[in-house]
Order: sequence, then C-alpha cells, then structure tokens
Amino acid sequence: MSQAIQSNSHMTMMREPVFLNKAAELTPVIRRRKTCPLNAIRLCEDPQAVHGWSMEPIDTADAYLQKSFSTGDSLILDFGTHGVGWLTFACDYTGSPPDAPAHLRFTFGETLCEIAEPFSEYEGWLSSSWLQQHDEYIDVIPSTIQLSRRYCFRYLKITVVSLSPKYQLRLTDVTFETVSSAPETHPACDTRDAQLRRIDEISVLTLRNCMQEVFEDGPKRDRRLWLGDLRLQALVNNVTFKNHDLVRRCLYLFSGHRREDGMVSANIFTRPHVIADDTFLFDYSLFYVDILNDYVLETQDVATAKELWPIALRQIELALDRCDTDGLVTDSSDWWSFIDWHEKLNKQGPSQGVLIYCLHKAIQLAQICQPELCERLSATLSRLMAGARRLWDPARGLYVSGAERQISYATQIWMVLADIGDGAHQRTVMENLLHSSPEIGMNTPYMRHHFIAALLKTGMRERAIEEIKKYWGKMVEYGVDTFWELFDPEHPDFSPYGSKLINSYCHAWSCTPSWFIRQYGL
Amino acid sequence: MSQAIQSNSHMTMMREPVFLNKAAELTPVIRRRKTCPLNAIRLCEDPQAVHGWSMEPIDTADAYLQKSFSTGDSLILDFGTHGVGWLTFACDYTGSPPDAPAHLRFTFGETLCEIAEPFSEYEGWLSSSWLQQHDEYIDVIPSTIQLSRRYCFRYLKITVVSLSPKYQLRLTDVTFETVSSAPETHPACDTRDAQLRRIDEISVLTLRNCMQEVFEDGPKRDRRLWLGDLRLQALVNNVTFKNHDLVRRCLYLFSGHRREDGMVSANIFTRPHVIADDTFLFDYSLFYVDILNDYVLETQDVATAKELWPIALRQIELALDRCDTDGLVTDSSDWWSFIDWHEKLNKQGPSQGVLIYCLHKAIQLAQICQPELCERLSATLSRLMAGARRLWDPARGLYVSGAERQISYATQIWMVLADIGDGAHQRTVMENLLHSSPEIGMNTPYMRHHFIAALLKTGMRERAIEEIKKYWGKMVEYGVDTFWELFDPEHPDFSPYGSKLINSYCHAWSCTPSWFIRQYGL
Repeated sequence: MSQAIQSNSHMTMMREPVFLNKAAELTPVIRRRKTCPLNAIRLCEDPQAVHGWSMEPIDTADAYLQKSFSTGDSLILDFGTHGVGWLTFACDYTGSPPDAPAHLRFTFGETLCEIAEPFSEYEGWLSSSWLQQHDEYIDVIPSTIQLSRRYCFRYLKITVVSLSPKYQLRLTDVTFETVSSAPETHPACDTRDAQLRRIDEISVLTLRNCMQEVFEDGPKRDRRLWLGDLRLQALVNNVTFKNHDLVRRCLYLFSGHRREDGMVSANIFTRPHVIADDTFLFDYSLFYVDILNDYVLETQDVATAKELWPIALRQIELALDRCDTDGLVTDSSDWWSFIDWHEKLNKQGPSQGVLIYCLHKAIQLAQICQPELCERLSATLSRLMAGARRLWDPARGLYVSGAERQISYATQIWMVLADIGDGAHQRTVMENLLHSSPEIGMNTPYMRHHFIAALLKTGMRERAIEEIKKYWGKMVEYGVDTFWELFDPEHPDFSPYGSKLINSYCHAWSCTPSWFIRQYGL
Repeated sequence: MSQAIQSNSHMTMMREPVFLNKAAELTPVIRRRKTCPLNAIRLCEDPQAVHGWSMEPIDTADAYLQKSFSTGDSLILDFGTHGVGWLTFACDYTGSPPDAPAHLRFTFGETLCEIAEPFSEYEGWLSSSWLQQHDEYIDVIPSTIQLSRRYCFRYLKITVVSLSPKYQLRLTDVTFETVSSAPETHPACDTRDAQLRRIDEISVLTLRNCMQEVFEDGPKRDRRLWLGDLRLQALVNNVTFKNHDLVRRCLYLFSGHRREDGMVSANIFTRPHVIADDTFLFDYSLFYVDILNDYVLETQDVATAKELWPIALRQIELALDRCDTDGLVTDSSDWWSFIDWHEKLNKQGPSQGVLIYCLHKAIQLAQICQPELCERLSATLSRLMAGARRLWDPARGLYVSGAERQISYATQIWMVLADIGDGAHQRTVMENLLHSSPEIGMNTPYMRHHFIAALLKTGMRERAIEEIKKYWGKMVEYGVDTFWELFDPEHPDFSPYGSKLINSYCHAWSCTPSWFIRQYGL
C-alpha cells in the first residue's frame, strides 16, 4: 500500500516511551546467510511468459564470471530464488592498471521485467526512487565493495557503463548476504497435496523475507510495518516461525506513537526513530484489536493483553463514533477504510463487517482484561448486528453497501466473517455470492485471503482449496518465488500504481495460504 | 595526460620494498578545512562567457536552503572557489513522514559547463567515469550523509530526481571538507604587478589542490602522480610550500616499482598498493634526473641523491640506447616521448633537447655522487651536442626534427633549454622562432612553461612577462579559480579528449607562473 492514501500532517500525535522502549528491547536478531549466484542468464522476449519475459541460462555463474568485461558489456545473474539483503562484490582487472574509475550500474529485480524494461521509461505514480538501482564508481581496483543499501531481488543485472580501454574488469566475487529475523527452521507442512505443499513453501519464503526488524509489508516496497499486513503475517507466523516476540514488538510500536485521540496509525516508520505515519484507516486501526487478541490466544501472555487493552478498546470506541444511532457505519466518499485496492468499491458494507468482526475480538479480550465491560460491548454488538441487517437485500440475497446499494465481494465476505446471521445464512450468502459473481470483485491477495477465510468459515472447504489453487496456484505456474502484492490471474501486468515495475513481488499480505493449509489441514 | 598513450601489459616489472617503505613513511598529513556554499546561482547562456555559460546569484546559500524541494526541483550551489575533498549533507523533510526514498543526483563542476551540459551527451574518448556525478537514494530521513568519493569542484548541482508527493526535502546542511597536504601558509609574492600577483595566487591554489598524498596531475582527472607534472610542481613547491618531503616521497615511489631494465614509469598508481603504470615515455623518464638534481640543490640532502643516483643514471643510459652513433635520438613514429599534446608534432628534435638538458643535470649529480663518471658523461654530452647540431637548418636559422625536417616551437625551445650553442645563438633561435611563428605551435600550459623558461634563459624577460599575461592572464580574465590542463586562448573549448567536459580545470602542470614570478622576481 502506498501514498494514494489521504494524509493530514497537521494532526497532533502522542508518544509513549514505555511502549517504545519495550519495542526496542524486543528488536530481533537478524540472521544472515551468504548466497551466491547460480547462473548467468539471458532474457528472451516471450509472449507466453509472465510479463512477456523468460530467461535461459548461458553458463554457471562461476564459469561466466571468469570473463573480463569492457565498456558496454552487461551480465545478468540469477541467484536462484528471491532474497533480501546486502550485495558485496569484489573486482579486479586484466590489461593495464586501471587508469580511470570503473562505472558500474546495478539493477535489481524480484522479477525479470525489472531487469528487462528500462527504469528510465517508468511512468507510474509512486516515486521512481523505489526502483532498485545503483551506480557505483570504483576508484580503486582491485577492491571489495558492499553496497550501502538493502536490496530485494533474485536477478541482478550489472552493466559496465564505462571503463578506460586500457583495462577490462573482472568480477571475482558476487555475494548476496540475505537477512531475516525468521528462525532457520519451521515445522514441516503435512498436506499430501503436492500443489498445496508448493504453495505453502512459497508462502513461507514470502513471510521469511518480510520478517526483518519488523514485519514489513514488502521488502522491496514499502519496507514498512503496516497494521493490515501485520495481522495476516502474525497468523502465518503462528503456524510456522512462531516468533511471537516480533508480533509483540510490532504491537508496542503501534502503541508507542498514536494520534492525540488514541487512534493507532495504519503504519509505522522505525528509522531514524519510531514515528507513526499520518495515514489512519478505519479498518486497519480496528485490526489492532484482532492482532492483540490473536497474540494472547497464541501465547497466553495475559500481562501484555492487559497492558495494551486500553488502546485496543479505544480503537473500538473511535470506530463507534462513525456509526449512526442505528448502529451502521456512516458512509464516506474518502479513503478512510482500506478493504481492498479497488477504485469503485464502496467501503460502508465491508467496514461494517470489519467493525463487528473486531468487536467480537474485543469482547474476547474484555473477558480477560475488563470483564465488567462485556455486557456493554455485547449490547453494542447487537446494535451493530442490527445495523448490518439494514444492508441486507432480501430480493438479491446479498448485502448492499452505500447509497447506491453496491453489491461487492468485499461486503458479503466481511458480513460472513463478522458472523452476521446463523451458519445457514452465511452459507447462503457465500453461495449467492459465488453464483452471482458481482462486478465489484477482488483485486488483491489481501482481499482473497478474506474470501478464502469466508469459504472455510461456511464449510466450503473444497471450494476454498480450489480458489487457493486457482489464485496462488496460478502464481506458482507463473514461476514466482514469493507471492505478489497484486495479482490478477488474467492480467499479470496489473498495477494500481501505473506500472508493474513498481509492484512488490514479495508481499506479506499474500503469504496466508500457509495459514489455511496448516490451520485447516488442507 | 591520459590513455592515448601506448601500453604494453606484458612487460616485467621489479619492486624495491626499501624505496616503497620509505615512500610510505613519508606519507603526508592531509589538512582538512570545512567550507560552506556561498550562493545559490542560476546559469545563463552567454556567448560572451567562457564555454558559453555565465551565472548569477539567486540568493545566499543559507537563505536559499531554507526552501523545501519536491520532485523535479534542482539547485546549484557556488562554493566561491575551487576545492578538492568530501561532500557531506544533512537532510530533513517537511510534510508527511517520508514514505519513499529520496533520490538525489549530485553533479560536480570545476567549471559551469560541467553543471550546465548534460553528461549523458558526453562523447569524448576518455572514460565517462571521470565525469563527476553521484546518485544517492536516501532511505532514512532525517539523516546526514557523507559521499564516499572525493570530488573536485566549485559548483554543485543537486537534482531532486524523485520523492513521494507526500513530503518535501530540506537540505539542512551542505558542507565541503577540502583537503590538501600543502601547509596552510606560504611566503607572500612580492611582485608589484597586480596582474602577476593574481596569476600567482591562482597558481598557488592550483598547486595546493593538486597536493594530496602525492603530487597529483589533476585532482579531478587523472588524480595521479605523473613524472612530467611532478617536475614542474616541485619547482613551484620550492618557492611556495617547500614541502620537500613530498617530492622525496614521489621520487621513492617512482624508484620503488620500475621496469625490469630499470626505466621509471611515466606515472604511478598508489592504491590499493603502489604500482607503476605500463606507460613509459622517453622524456618523462629522463626528468627523474632533473627532479632528483633539483631536490638536492634545494635541500642539500646528499644521502638521498646518492641513494637514488643509480636510478637516475640508468635513465640516461636507457635514453642513450635510442641514439645513433653520431649522438642523435632515433626518430620514431610512435608515442615514446610526450613533449606536448600535439598530434602533428615530430618528437625527435625536442627529445634530443630533453636528453641533453637532463644529461647536464646528470653531470651535476655525478659531481656529488660519482665524480669519476663526469668525464665520460661530458664526452657523451659533447657527442649529443654534435648530434643536435645536425638538426640545425642554417638557411632558416632554426632546428628541424624528423625525416620531414619539421620546424616546431618545441624543438627550438628544447634546444635552447639544452643549452646548445652560446647565449647569442640561443637568443637568435628564440628571435627566429618568434619571428617565424611555426605552424606547429604549443597546445598545453606544460609546453608554454618551457617556452617561458626559454625566453627567460635568453634574457627576453619582458617578452616572458607578456607571454605569461597573454596566456595565463587570459585564463584569469575568463574567471578561472585554478589553471587548466588545456588552454587555447582562441578556443577555450579545445580538448584533446573530444569534450571540454572531461578536461581537468585544476592541473598541476599549469601552475608554474608562480615559479617564474618568484624565482625571477618578475
């Protein structure tokens, strides 16, 4: 997610050093692993391939790097899989002593298209500064150089922009030191379905590469702790790496810098010091409650639950302020609720669902932290449930959203996840949804996650597996190493940012098949 | 000078650790000084100005840097004069917290044209890697960043290539830490001629900025110890900074890595370790003798003279190998002798002059180091003098060079400096030269130096002053801060490398007016 979201830099924020100090104490150990390129490859224009590019190996990297390179030469190295970390290279020369600096350009790609298509032609609407490239001018040869920024890639293109004609350059070593705060090992996945097993592997690698000093949304872009992504990462972490302290650290980070009224931000910057972004989203803030509840269920860490409960409760209170007297979230034309990357999606219905879903979680937490509140919260829940039922369209058997009574996947899914009506009703909603396939569909793996969750909740296990295979399985067919931020099986070039080059191709919110497969024993 | 010179990377070299260790022990202290930009400027296309560009200040740098910058903005800072060193900048933001890296491009100019004309259009034949630029991607804001390379500039352009629209960038500090191994102070110049005083100031700054861990030819390009440049730098150093240990260090560097046959290289690389270039020039190698002799005259350091004398003598012997039995340097079509950057210049005549000039110096050294050799060397000198007279064209009253009997400035100048004939003869040669103005002229300040030296040697003091003012004075009129590597008063865009952008605009071999002014009391 990025800066398409409205902001207000004039708001007043409050800082709670106690929480920030606890977050700092929980800074994880980063595990480092040295990896070497496998092959030198060439790119092939290929209309059949994803993004129109395929590759073929030219030689092993070791053999290819015996070559000496001159001005204008370039090479592409394939590290075999996706990683996050630091690039180090050593260079030497052949010919006369280097009488001019060596100017090298490094281009990093999670996918082939980032290597194949020139960044100079990028015209998307996120900052081109996200495109991973670096120009190095080497004054002293031989030397060993570690690039100062962290990169995220499988493919590395090195272009020899300029040497002097008196010497040629050799790359005597190219090492990618990958980093993650995930432990080296995790429990095996015991599904017997080979395709699901492959999907699980990719999900786990996706999560691993997003696990750094915080749960990042995507290690290429935005490299940042977003609340909505954290919620899904925490789920997969529960069934894989079980690094619960990292979840706790992230909860403290959101707690440590909040808006004056107590609202937690949609995302947090951690460098040079912790600062909450000025983006506040109705749904993301509410998910703080869900993450805390899930964390406590997983760890039995009641002390943390009690410590953070007032903040969780505050998110519910702030959301309730947006409800009318009949318990319905007030519609709004601006971007106060995320739900999905979808320009036409009306957010009222799904936001109603999210609020109720989180209120259920708040009641669970209240039972531990402040039982005397349960009765009041349950009354509120009933009122919101009633509000939700006002969106029911009996003729169509689906929930509507907004003044124009929009029918969308998102609204149905969130009403089901909010547990509106009994099991039979929810099943009917899902069947009607599948039968009617509303025009307002699902654009992100994030939204797909909730779709799968709703299918499983309504007992449609086979359909859930089928949908996982149709969606994440299609990415696997496309040969991905990690799951993408955005994916439309019919339009793999889709980007909400105006260019596929800027999409993140390892994105935390897409790693949830592991949770479904492992949690539901698929 | 650069790689237009022939090379042979298959030669065998020898290393003498004793000399290299002495050179290492003499590594100078580098003095650092923090400087700040004076003004923000704008460029003006100006056909009257040097290179077609002039500037006007927009505001003081301090005031201008209060601004916040967005994608596409750029600014040019003027540091007031030429410097060599490290750039540090601090940045902060206004608006929302930075949700994308800041991509800045830094362009460094010794002159305005390097700032004004895009490097992307450079088509010269030296490596574009010399063009001073850097792209920085800033992940953490605020931060303070020191660029890792040394730059050489007066003008700094900063282009904000890309931010996100949610924030703007402020440059809270821009500092240029300049470096030199020259002492802070030097004796005043006591000429009463204001124009010469200004020329002296610029000469001294030129030398200062070239004095680093070695005497560099030019701190922008090639940043390297060349023997021909060292010889002239040592002269000016004698009358200004008097850092004789740096001259001694450089002599050891040339001594420490030589060709198998004992020839010293034309230039030395010092990083990552000392290595002699595989470029060997007839004249440059001979100048080792002159530099050593001059060093001893200046310092009375006889021990060093005796230690290095065998190497000096060896340069004479190797040069004599190129002479025919009648004592004339054999002509050659390849680049074995530098003399001047001039495609059409035949090198035989001037090289004959250089050899005799250096043999005079060798005899002076032999008197200290190996007196028993003086007689033999004097006999050789007579033979070479006779050889030189074979190039005399009595009809034209000038010396010729090569099979085509070329008449050039260089040949006359070097025959005079070689002290061929008596004073009256030499004076006649110079008068005939000035009168005839041969087509094969002088292209470099380096060649001009020898022209001025020959004028002064033949008592043409006023003409020498006039020529200094016509040439270096013209650069002063053009507003230079330091003297250029190449300068043709009629064609200030001239470059032997195909582009003025790659010329060095602070070049040691151009700093010698100080020596003339101070040594001859001009």
